[in-house]
This record gives sequence, C-alpha cells and structure tokens, in this order.
Amino acid sequence: MRTIRTGILGLLLGLVPLASAQELTSPDGNLQLHFGLDNGVPTYRLDYKGKGVIAASRLGLEMEEASLTDGFTQTDVQNISFDETWSPVWGEYSRIRNHYNEMAVTLEQKENHNRTVLLRFRLFNDGLGFRYELPEQKTMNYLTVKDECTEFNLTGNHKTFCIPGDYDTNEFAYTTAPMSEIREGMEKNLRKKGYESRTTSFSVQTPLMMKTADGLYINIHEAALVDYSAMLLNVDDKAFRLSAHLTPDKLGKKGYLQLPRHTPWRTVIVSDDARDILASQLILNLNEPCRFEDTSWIKPQKFVGVWWNMFTGAGNTWAYSDYYKAKPGVTDYTKLTPNGRHAANTAHVKEYIDFAAENGIDAVLVEGWNEGWEDWASYRKDCQFLFTKPYPDFDVKELHRYAAAKGVRIMMHHETSANAADYERQMDEAFQYMVDNGYNSVKTGYVEYVIPRSEYHSSQWMNNHYIHVVKRAADYKIMVDSHEAVRPTGLCRTYPNWLAQESARGGEFESMGGTTPTT
Amino acid sequence: MRTIRTGILGLLLGLVPLASAQELTSPDGNLQLHFGLDNGVPTYRLDYKGKGVIAASRLGLEMEEASLTDGFTQTDVQNISFDETWSPVWGEYSRIRNHYNEMAVTLEQKENHNRTVLLRFRLFNDGLGFRYELPEQKTMNYLTVKDECTEFNLTGNHKTFCIPGDYDTNEFAYTTAPMSEIREGMEKNLRKKGYESRTTSFSVQTPLMMKTADGLYINIHEAALVDYSAMLLNVDDKAFRLSAHLTPDKLGKKGYLQLPRHTPWRTVIVSDDARDILASQLILNLNEPCRFEDTSWIKPQKFVGVWWNMFTGAGNTWAYSDYYKAKPGVTDYTKLTPNGRHAANTAHVKEYIDFAAENGIDAVLVEGWNEGWEDWASYRKDCQFLFTKPYPDFDVKELHRYAAAKGVRIMMHHETSANAADYERQMDEAFQYMVDNGYNSVKTGYVEYVIPRSEYHSSQWMNNHYIHVVKRAADYKIMVDSHEAVRPTGLCRTYPNWLAQESARGGEFESMGGTTPTT
Repeated sequence: MRTIRTGILGLLLGLVPLASAQELTSPDGNLQLHFGLDNGVPTYRLDYKGKGVIAASRLGLEMEEASLTDGFTQTDVQNISFDETWSPVWGEYSRIRNHYNEMAVTLEQKENHNRTVLLRFRLFNDGLGFRYELPEQKTMNYLTVKDECTEFNLTGNHKTFCIPGDYDTNEFAYTTAPMSEIREGMEKNLRKKGYESRTTSFSVQTPLMMKTADGLYINIHEAALVDYSAMLLNVDDKAFRLSAHLTPDKLGKKGYLQLPRHTPWRTVIVSDDARDILASQLILNLNEPCRFEDTSWIKPQKFVGVWWNMFTGAGNTWAYSDYYKAKPGVTDYTKLTPNGRHAANTAHVKEYIDFAAENGIDAVLVEGWNEGWEDWASYRKDCQFLFTKPYPDFDVKELHRYAAAKGVRIMMHHETSANAADYERQMDEAFQYMVDNGYNSVKTGYVEYVIPRSEYHSSQWMNNHYIHVVKRAADYKIMVDSHEAVRPTGLCRTYPNWLAQESARGGEFESMGGTTPTT
Repeated sequence: MRTIRTGILGLLLGLVPLASAQELTSPDGNLQLHFGLDNGVPTYRLDYKGKGVIAASRLGLEMEEASLTDGFTQTDVQNISFDETWSPVWGEYSRIRNHYNEMAVTLEQKENHNRTVLLRFRLFNDGLGFRYELPEQKTMNYLTVKDECTEFNLTGNHKTFCIPGDYDTNEFAYTTAPMSEIREGMEKNLRKKGYESRTTSFSVQTPLMMKTADGLYINIHEAALVDYSAMLLNVDDKAFRLSAHLTPDKLGKKGYLQLPRHTPWRTVIVSDDARDILASQLILNLNEPCRFEDTSWIKPQKFVGVWWNMFTGAGNTWAYSDYYKAKPGVTDYTKLTPNGRHAANTAHVKEYIDFAAENGIDAVLVEGWNEGWEDWASYRKDCQFLFTKPYPDFDVKELHRYAAAKGVRIMMHHETSANAADYERQMDEAFQYMVDNGYNSVKTGYVEYVIPRSEYHSSQWMNNHYIHVVKRAADYKIMVDSHEAVRPTGLCRTYPNWLAQESARGGEFESMGGTTPTT
C-alpha cells in the first residue's frame, strides 16, 4: 500500500469535519475508516458495507501535565498491509490469520512544545483496532492520566446487551434493551448484587454488544490491557454517544505513564452475522506473540471441583472450623474444633479423584484446603490466607500420591480475598509449594475489596499484578485460571499459561438467585 | 502487690476528676500514676518526685464502629510487680533490667453492649508505658481507627526540642524553643525541606523531648509499633496540651484492627538528669523478647561507603549513564553510554575494600551498584530498581572474591524509592541473590513517595512492611539497616537483625545546607 503524506496543507483545508480525511479500507473492502483533524481535534468514523458503524467521533488524551486533545497538526502518515498466520498454543483454532491494513498518523501540537501523539489504526475484515502511542520526546517524560477522550458516536438507539460500569466486578446479570432504556434495566440488575457500583457516572462495562435496527452487530472492547487501567464506557443515552471512562485508583488518578508508551487497543468488531462476533480473533491478533519459548507444559484441562457443595445450602463449608476470629500465622488450627462440615478433607477429595479418574476428567479443584477460610472477607487484616498451610484434615502428600496413581491432577486454589499485596508477598513460597507437591495449575481468586487499598480490581496497579502472577507462575511452569480478576483482553496469546479468566457472572450465581438469560 | 477491685461504687463516687483514682508507684517510689474515671471518661495523671509531669489527661479510642471514649465503668483492676534482667543480642549494655509495677484496668461500656477496653500501665523507675488492649468480645470484631484520644496535658510552657509532624519523614532540623514559640521555629525549618509536611493540624513528631522550668526532662514516644500507624502529637500551644495524632492512610483511615488487639505502648520517660533520658532502656523493655532462636549470625559492624562522593558535588553519580529514561527490566544497560562518573565501579570499590581492610573496618556499603539509578524518583513506574541486576561495570563475583580475601564484607544496598510493593515482589530473589554472593547485611532505602499509593511512610501497612522485611531477611540470616523507614520504637529487641534505623536527618544533609545544632 502506498504511503500518503499530508502536512500543513491538510490542516489549511481541514476546517470542516474530516475535510482532510484519510481513508483506510479493510482487506476485503467491507470496512472503511476515515480519519482527519476537525479544527485540530483528531476525529474518526467507521463504516461497514456503506453503513455507518461509528459516526464522526473525537479522539484524545487528557493528562495532568498536558492536554493532548486539540491543537494538532498532522505531520506524517504511514500505511502498511500485514498478513500472517500464526499458531496459538491452545484455543478453538489451530491457525489464526492476522490480516489487516494499518494507518499510523503522527500528530503534533506545534504551538505546544511540539508534543507528539501517534494514532495507529488497524482495520481487519472483522473490525477496527486503534491505540494512542506516545513516543519518547523532549518535552514530556512522565504523565498522569486524567482522562481518555475517545468517543464512539453511535448511529441510533441500538439494542444493547450490557452490564453496569464498575471498577471491581463484572458479575452482573445482563440488561438487553434499546440504549435509551438500559439505565432502568441496569438499575434493577444492580440491586441483585451484594454491593454498589463504584462509578458515579452512567456507564457500562466492555465488551459491549449492540445490534442496530438494520441488522449490524457491533462489539466495543479493548485488547492487550497492559500497564493501564481498564476502560469502561460512559453512556449518553440521548445522543447515543459512548466515551472512554478509565478506571481510576482511589486517589482519582487514572494511570501513571513514562514515555515511550501506548494505550491498549480500543476495538470495534462489526458484522451483519452475529456468529462472526464470537468467532472473531481480532482481540488475540492485537496482542503480542507468545513470550515463552517452551510451552510444552501448557495444556488446557477439564476439572471438577470441591466447590459446589459450599454453595448449595448442603451445609458444606470452605472453613475447617466455625471460629470466625482465626488468624493465619497466629492461630494454631490443629487446636480448633472442626465444624464437621469441611468439604476439603482428604477422604472427600479422594472421592472426587475417583470420579475424575472414572470419567476422564483431568483434574480436581479443591477450594477450602488452606488456613484462612474462617475469616476470608477480612479487608482489615494484613494476611487473610496462607498458601502453604493446609488445614489439619487435608493431607497434601497423601492426596498427591493418590491422585498421581490415578492419573489425575489436583488443581491448587489461591483465594487472595483481593489482598494482592499479601499474595505477592507469599507468591514465591506458594508456587514453590505447588511444585513440591505436584500441582501444575492454580485458580486464583480476588473476592471483595482490594489491598493495596488505593486500588480497584480494574485499576492499573492491579492489571499489572495479574500479569505479574501469570509471568511468575510461568517461571514455575504453572497454569493460571483467574477468578474475579479484570476482564480478558486477549493476553492469553502473550502468556498462554493464563488459561482462563472467570471475570463474568458465573455458575455460582445459580445458588444466589440465578441469572435470567436474555436474548 | 495486692489486687484492688473497684466496681459500681467507684463510679458512683467518681463524679469529680480522679475521685475514684487508683495509684501506681514506680519501684523506687519516685513516679506516681493516678488513674480514674471522670464521669465515665478514663483519665490519668503522672507525677515525679511530687512534681506534675502529665496533668490530668483523658484516654480513649474513637473507632468508626464504636466510640470507646466515655460511658465507662471500671469492672476490674489487676496489679503486679515484675523484675527480670535480660541480655540483648547487642547494644550499649550486656544486661538490661526490666523492672516495673503494673496496673491493668478493665473498663466496660455497660450501656453499650458491654464493650470492653483494658488499659495497661507499667511504671518503671525511669518512666511510664501504657497501652490500650481490646480483648476478644462478642459485640466487636473488626474496627477501623478514626482517632486515638490519648492526651498529654503538660504543666507549663516547657522548653521543647521538636521537628514538625509529618507522615513521611523525620528528616527535619530541630527547633528548640518554649512550646509557645515552636510553631514559628518549625515553619522556618520546614522551608529547609524539599517538600511539604502532610499534616494539616499543628503537630510534632515523637520522640518529643521537653525540659520544664524546674529542671525536669520529659520524653514522649511510643514502643513496639506493630500493625498500627505511627503516632504524632497534635500541639495546643496555648493550653500546653499534646494529643495523639495517628498517621492515616490516604483514604483517611488510621488503622484496621481485628480483635483481640492492642495499641503500641505510649511512653513518657522522666528524669531530673538529662543523661537518664538517653540511658533509659524503657523502650526496649516494652518490646517483646527476641523472636529468633539462633542469633549467632547477628553482629553490629562498622562500615565505610561508596556514597559521600555522590553528595559532595565531586560529580560522582549513583547512575551508570545519563540516560534518564532507562527502565529496569526493559532497557539493556550494557548498551547505554557510561557517564564516566559512576562511583560503584569495580576498581573504585576495590579501593574502598583496601581502605576498610587497612583500617579495621568490617564492611563497605556500595550505593549505585544496580540497575535503576538513572530514574529513581519514578513514582509513576511499577518498577524503579532491580535488586538482582548489577550495572555492567560492577563485578559482583570478583568483588566478593576480593573482599573475602581481605576479610571485608560488602554491604548490600536496596534503594526501593519507597516502592514497597515492588520490593516485596522481588524480595525473595533479592535476598537469595545476596546469599549467593556473600552479602550478610543490607541498607534499605525509602526515598520519596510510597507505592502502594494509599500509604505514607508511617502508616499501618508500611509499618507492617518494615517488619516483614526484617523477618524475611532473618530467614536468609541477613541484617538490616533501614533508611527513611518509620522512626525506631525498640523493635530491634524482638528482631535484633534490625541493626539500625536511619530515620532522622542524617549526615547527608551536610551536603544540602547542613544542620545547625541546637541546645
């Protein structure tokens, strides 16, 4: 594809919206992106088969130290085509085609220290990805994110499948309604949750699924969420305008950056066939290739779990005793009176191992095996769980021997109570303990409020934490299934030991009022 | 000593201040503590040789969940005498006498769920220690500290030796003035510091030293600061009243507790001979005995340091290069252009080792040995330093060999830039790296702003962090000298590998305008 260069001429002509627009077309020609400067404000538009998907929408970043939203001149544009096929370590497809046309536009604030922002657009047959890149430059080094001004102006009152914006959880029932009516529906669904949403504006989570009146399916999300806070979407349900709402930390800061840096990809998947949205590999394609040389130890697995009994009202508990003031590292658990309802006991787990062996199931997850469950929701403690201390009735060595003899793995459970700080403190010991006892996979959990107390589940520090866990686990050849972590953005391509992210409202809610399917 | 029990009768009589007072006397009879309930408010008073030290002052804790300040009835009092002599692992004395009379008063809010607080007073010949104890009880479990209401009412406008209240640092020049004039003096001294104090009220740090007009020396501080935030003192310079000011976290919470719990000891050391204040072992006596069975590896040491050159303007730097955007773990430091002024290079460190060997000095501290110094004040990065990555011109193995041959140790330096979260993440690897390379002591550093971003240097989470470092270091038989951590409260008795705490304004300030001695 030829390289187009525009300069000051484009700016002089650019006084009406997108008058200086450049166009980018998907490889199959169905999607068309228009980019231009509207009085110095970066603006884009997306069409699919001639129909509007995203109407003219502004782009920009607001930093505490610099407003990167307007006053721009375009100084360069580079276009390339890219086509490769790669093999994921696991997944629905053995080969994935990564095929896109790219346009990288360099913008400069000539009257403001020549501050430079690069906008990189990738147009696939199934959608658009774009991100902001902040190259190394003389007049900026550190930035604190105040706001991301990315907008997604919709073309009508689309049918919307959504959950309420929240910095800590995605475990809501879905609302399906025209956008003008989702507010009421989401408020009803909010009440089904144990605690309040923390956003003060009217917002929804991504991935956000929509259907237009003329049969287009549109999905807005993000890819490769690394060292940045997760994006929610503010909703203007009268103008049908969505805009980026970044998760702050509890000091109100939305991100801490050092240049050179880039944001995650903002993604818009589009089709007139709903099935294409699910089949899309766009999110994976926008992530970096696998970082590990040896991936022979990574294998998806089926597992059953000592878990459901604790939800059903059958009376089983994660906790070994009813002494709710127990403190891991302080209390001598061997001296507690067992409550007689502790499910993760050696004999019972053996029954699960037998069942797994008889039914070709790879592994048995055991929740409630370790010290701390008497008092897990303990935001006011420095340590809620010990990850190397089994309860007195859970014989790790014997269970490992028994499971190994039957060709079954036991899956580790690390419930952190969202005390990520303490989990990092214990992590090396915890993973070494797993290796020493024959575990090769862990389900992590992040229930309740986060420690460090400055953080939400979806804020930048926590997003870095989840990646740290996965990388450190890989050092021990351990696979990870994260529960209640931030929503997935395709990082399992880069770190394929991140086998699963249980970030949505899962089966456990069937024991808590259930979830009504929507259409 | 006999046990005195008072009950409802005491309350009925207790309508005038300290009317129901009990008295406690120091073993030598010089100090006298009076405790009583003033309309249900716990109140104490302290005299020395018949002179007032602390006039009648209230006690109490304000929790978000419960006000533990008034409405109390005394339900029990227990008195004991204690006398033992113990041997510290190191210090000025080979034997320390721990001799006190104790009074433990149980108070109950009979009209408020029988909430119970125990006040434990220990009266030594050289001063008073007291703390609040919250036993396990039916109606309280978790508490969030809103305020501690401990007061220290002084008997006059004492000469005061003080530094301004601050949640992050004690590195101020001292003000010496009558209490009524310290505000002005401290404001002058504040200006000598690089950034602003963070307390909004008029406050000072502890230990706070005072001298009365009639020649008494009084020192107020705390002992055994564990799982609690550090105490500053609010100053009322008209009424000459001091009151506890606990360090909050940045969410405004002053502590998170689960019962049973107790506060650190609040201490008042008193003498009519100034030398006794320095000689006092009261703070150590109020700390728990040594937690380690084997202490043979703990030895105080003298050291010289590759350090002062970086302060003097001689042009030496901690950093290997001048590329201020270097990122540990990302930048290839071997490809950077050396700045030619990096002091921690192999040849130069050998000169220090020679000097140490020739002059009977045990160790050489080397600052600036590891990746990260190009950009250390980087609150906006997740990782500022790597503790296992020497700069290209610092040959760890060769220096260890060279030093060992000369009978000298190299002292490790872990500057964390107050990113305690990342330090904990790297800690096991860092300590193992030390063991592998022959290090047995580390100087830690906490310059600038804390990460986790919810915390101050003196808030509860950080105080737990420092202890975690010391305990984990002990697992590797490593001694710790902490720089810029919270001020010492005698924890070196419990963890004697915590050899030093450089929390005050140290010698480095001689290169930054100096410090004028006060008398």
